[in-house]
Amino acid sequence: MTEIASMGEFALIKHLTEKIELRNTSTVRGTGDDAAVIRYEGKDVLVTTDLLLEGIHFDLTYVPLKHLGYKAAVVNFSDIYAMNGRPRQITVSIGVSKRFSVEALEEFYTGLRLACEIYGVDIVGGDTSASLTGLCISITCLGEGEKGNTVYRNTANNTDLICVSGDLGAAYMGLQLLEREKTVFNGEKDFTPDFAGKEYLLERQLKPEARKDIVDLLRDNNILPTSMIDLSDGLSSDLLHICRESNAGCRIYEERLPIDYQTAMMAEEFNMSLTTAALNGGEDYELLFTVPVAMHEKIEALDGVTMIGFICEASAGENLIARDGTEVPLTAQGWNSLA
Amino acid sequence: MTEIASMGEFALIKHLTEKIELRNTSTVRGTGDDAAVIRYEGKDVLVTTDLLLEGIHFDLTYVPLKHLGYKAAVVNFSDIYAMNGRPRQITVSIGVSKRFSVEALEEFYTGLRLACEIYGVDIVGGDTSASLTGLCISITCLGEGEKGNTVYRNTANNTDLICVSGDLGAAYMGLQLLEREKTVFNGEKDFTPDFAGKEYLLERQLKPEARKDIVDLLRDNNILPTSMIDLSDGLSSDLLHICRESNAGCRIYEERLPIDYQTAMMAEEFNMSLTTAALNGGEDYELLFTVPVAMHEKIEALDGVTMIGFICEASAGENLIARDGTEVPLTAQGWNSLA
Repeated sequence: MTEIASMGEFALIKHLTEKIELRNTSTVRGTGDDAAVIRYEGKDVLVTTDLLLEGIHFDLTYVPLKHLGYKAAVVNFSDIYAMNGRPRQITVSIGVSKRFSVEALEEFYTGLRLACEIYGVDIVGGDTSASLTGLCISITCLGEGEKGNTVYRNTANNTDLICVSGDLGAAYMGLQLLEREKTVFNGEKDFTPDFAGKEYLLERQLKPEARKDIVDLLRDNNILPTSMIDLSDGLSSDLLHICRESNAGCRIYEERLPIDYQTAMMAEEFNMSLTTAALNGGEDYELLFTVPVAMHEKIEALDGVTMIGFICEASAGENLIARDGTEVPLTAQGWNSLA
Repeated sequence: MTEIASMGEFALIKHLTEKIELRNTSTVRGTGDDAAVIRYEGKDVLVTTDLLLEGIHFDLTYVPLKHLGYKAAVVNFSDIYAMNGRPRQITVSIGVSKRFSVEALEEFYTGLRLACEIYGVDIVGGDTSASLTGLCISITCLGEGEKGNTVYRNTANNTDLICVSGDLGAAYMGLQLLEREKTVFNGEKDFTPDFAGKEYLLERQLKPEARKDIVDLLRDNNILPTSMIDLSDGLSSDLLHICRESNAGCRIYEERLPIDYQTAMMAEEFNMSLTTAALNGGEDYELLFTVPVAMHEKIEALDGVTMIGFICEASAGENLIARDGTEVPLTAQGWNSLA
């Protein structure tokens, strides 16, 4: 094990960044100067940023550093896709305890580089610093948007169909599972966590993917959403963002919510409401979007996209229509780490 | 006092960002969506990022939050100016303890907004989160560069003149002064720190400015530096970056180093080497740049710029010529927070 304190800041940064390859022609200059230089000819520049703090956003007892690096990058890419853009560059700042090993940091960077390779993104800068306490990660992602095709949250229209990619609640169930096994483990030496048949839930929590494929699919089918957001806080919170910023209401149908078999099994095992998990479980990183109602058949023909309801007038409120026909108002729960 | 925990994340972000004005036509959309949208027509996009952690980069016992906000923004602007660019947008992520008050965060944002107002920069996004421990600040700045006029670190040429703006070592002396008064204070109730006649040192440490004026001055005089960097780690470290990345050596002259009267007085009071403070004291945020030797007279005519030496062949090494004519090799000390 090599202590990072033994390397010094400049050597460490050099060591961590020397394996970085640049892929995009828009990246004129990456790491190594006061600033990176990027050139997007006639495009929109999209910028998003995420701060991940140990103990708040992740728990190193069960999150492998490689996965953490992967996820830290992917959640930013997801925000760019949610604007109908393509992620192109990221900057990565990390604050680490001096007791962290160089090998541990390399694990983190391996995950980061893997995500960048898969999504075609360049690492163009960052900052590395000591932290007196936990691990602190800040990633900023730049993306490219076609002018006129950038999709916002506040442009949903009355009667638009509400669509969601993939399935809901699995990442949340994965987190519950990890928390349970951590409690059971409690320092026991020969403990083996019981994850059989729940691999999908773990993957959704530990190694989520951003829905580049859905953005491609929509483009290939000439579907430009009227509004779009990625699901990080949970369907309920994120749909409320679209509604409130578009000055609209919505009706979504409980029976239409896409849920995986493993998520359903786990909810039963935990004796939790499956619908609550689907509505308020965060970190799905699926895309939630609206399209004009005339696109109904086009959407129906797409694999991996489900229509779950429609946009209505603001005065009608934001409601879930339960299986028994009752209307339940949607509430913003999300992940309030400050409460 | 309003505890941030009482507000909730969404309300807090809204509260902190509602006073934000957008100034730049390049800012198409700021906060409030998955990503900001920026449009630079036919320009270079410059990107830089800085991570500031409590206990490592700042000490809240003597750094007022308003100043911290100001400085956090300005150090990023400085990196953009060091590329011969203009800062245009920043994203601001903060991790704060739940015990932090909303008023304290407002102080931080007041400083941040003031810096943005003075330098003409838009706040376009960010992230706000709880932190289990200290205050954590991550700022990413986007800037605009004229194609072909972006100035890098690795393009200094043999015989180029080495120039520096302003004066050196004052921010470091300001830090020493603050640390001394903190030790003397040591919880005493009626303690009044002794800062008389040392205001300049404190200002350089607590409220540094980025040298927009120097970048303007060079442009107005048709001077395009061959290389440039901002002084964050200290003259010695930062000049070594230019030399090593340009595959060059340098000679700088002790007697030419620009030093303010207050810095000199303080060094004497502390019985410290003034030259060491000028060479290795960080956080001056002055611009260090090189120009062709033919520009000698043009540079000499500029206020606030000093020629301190010249670039030579790499084989000649990187040396300070002391007042007595001896050659002293420059060494990278900088601020190694990891060591």
